[in-house]
Amino acid sequence: MMNSDGALDYEASLDQDERIDLRLWLRLLTCSTMIERKVRAGLRREFNTTLPRFDVLSQLDCAADGLTMRTLSHHLMVSPGNLTGLVERLAGEGLLSKQSDPNDRRSFLIRITTRGKAFFDRMTPANHAWVSGSLADLSIEEKMTLFDALGRLKQSAGRAQST
Amino acid sequence: MMNSDGALDYEASLDQDERIDLRLWLRLLTCSTMIERKVRAGLRREFNTTLPRFDVLSQLDCAADGLTMRTLSHHLMVSPGNLTGLVERLAGEGLLSKQSDPNDRRSFLIRITTRGKAFFDRMTPANHAWVSGSLADLSIEEKMTLFDALGRLKQSAGRAQST
Repeated sequence: MMNSDGALDYEASLDQDERIDLRLWLRLLTCSTMIERKVRAGLRREFNTTLPRFDVLSQLDCAADGLTMRTLSHHLMVSPGNLTGLVERLAGEGLLSKQSDPNDRRSFLIRITTRGKAFFDRMTPANHAWVSGSLADLSIEEKMTLFDALGRLKQSAGRAQST
Repeated sequence: MMNSDGALDYEASLDQDERIDLRLWLRLLTCSTMIERKVRAGLRREFNTTLPRFDVLSQLDCAADGLTMRTLSHHLMVSPGNLTGLVERLAGEGLLSKQSDPNDRRSFLIRITTRGKAFFDRMTPANHAWVSGSLADLSIEEKMTLFDALGRLKQSAGRAQST
């Protein structure tokens, strides 16, 4: 926005609070993209897999009773439509199972299989190392400060989502 | 990871520093996903467009002399392959132009058109409002604290990228 007059005028019209908002958002996005790239690259290189696949297994690993498609898509913050193909492929590879939901015959319960769990457990320590590596230069105090500040942001953004 | 013994053992084996790393990363990802969803939903609803389209126009709006595909893909942190189709479609709609790069005949310079700029300038204040709305509950001091803490994280993650 720095080389075009219209945008410059618009930028100049912003007050300090508005300018910090945009810069904060861009920095937040840069940080999460950088760590995500590190994780994506590692998953591809070391496990020949993708982040969405890892994320699905991660969610199912936390849910001994299985998850409905609806809950899984809610946890992953993606639409059920975008998830269907991925779940079918993971089921085809024996990493998860689909069974009719006893509470709702039209719906499925999705569970991680023994094989899926073994695969996930191999990836977990590596994922940990990639994330920790990205945070390695921060002291524990700096991490706590950031964690608390992000907690406030999460609250604020959550309130804004519903408006 | 709370309902499976193997994962519980692994979780239990983590020290405090390692556990905060994962929680911090998940919270960071949640925050950026929440704001991104707000922006995506607004762009779709009010301008019938997508975030990748907005991001391309945003980058070009900052570059009066145009950008090569290589630089654009670097700024957006996506591969040139993933960008090609999008750039072609935006060019087809007259929102950007592609011209041979005078410094490298095999390469193109991409520029925003007057029409693209007019469209982008309509979206900018709305984008601003969605982002500011997500941050509305934070004081200016809280925003500065978060901004600085993310600056440290960005440095740390940048160093980790290259290792």
